[in-house]
Amino acid sequence: MTQRKKLDAGRVFHAIGDATRRAMLERLSGGPMSVSLLARPFRMSLAAVVQHLQVLEEAGLVKTEKVGRVRSCRVDSAGLNAAAQWLAARRPEWERKLDRLGELLAEPEEDRSSR
Amino acid sequence: MTQRKKLDAGRVFHAIGDATRRAMLERLSGGPMSVSLLARPFRMSLAAVVQHLQVLEEAGLVKTEKVGRVRSCRVDSAGLNAAAQWLAARRPEWERKLDRLGELLAEPEEDRSSR
Repeated sequence: MTQRKKLDAGRVFHAIGDATRRAMLERLSGGPMSVSLLARPFRMSLAAVVQHLQVLEEAGLVKTEKVGRVRSCRVDSAGLNAAAQWLAARRPEWERKLDRLGELLAEPEEDRSSR
Repeated sequence: MTQRKKLDAGRVFHAIGDATRRAMLERLSGGPMSVSLLARPFRMSLAAVVQHLQVLEEAGLVKTEKVGRVRSCRVDSAGLNAAAQWLAARRPEWERKLDRLGELLAEPEEDRSSR
């Protein structure tokens, strides 16, 4: 496993902020496909698609891999997770406390030390 | 409760794709504050801050409310949740299946009907 540059949520959100790149991610969420198949529904040059893919790859949202003579791409969860963590941490403090209380109350009786 | 225009993840990601707006959300995640207090660390006019706030509000990420003569703003979880759901749904199919399997295996023995 090669470690990419550190993921930052800013890079991820910049990447997802673009409608074309979101559409590419949607198309890839069903499973991996070649770049040319991915590009098919988009009204743009293959070069433009590759450029969008590069932004997605640098954000940790897509992985591409050369298989024989075909470049295959698939969703990379690293970027999705980084973004989800960022969102979760931005929730208001009191909501996070309520969540924690909810988890506590949901624990089986015997797991709690008091009451 | 007034129902805003339907939230769409695209609007949320466009809003979070901007570094200034992300910084505003971070500042607000500690608790509500007035627009002028929120604006303090940003090197821009109050009008520019208000414009950014409007984008955040339309995306369901911030709520603003007039309290007396002061406009107060706070994080709105609706937009954060919409974005988190979108991210979760874009994860590859096989990962979602693995998650489901993990949940199943974590269930207490008596909750499972067979085996």
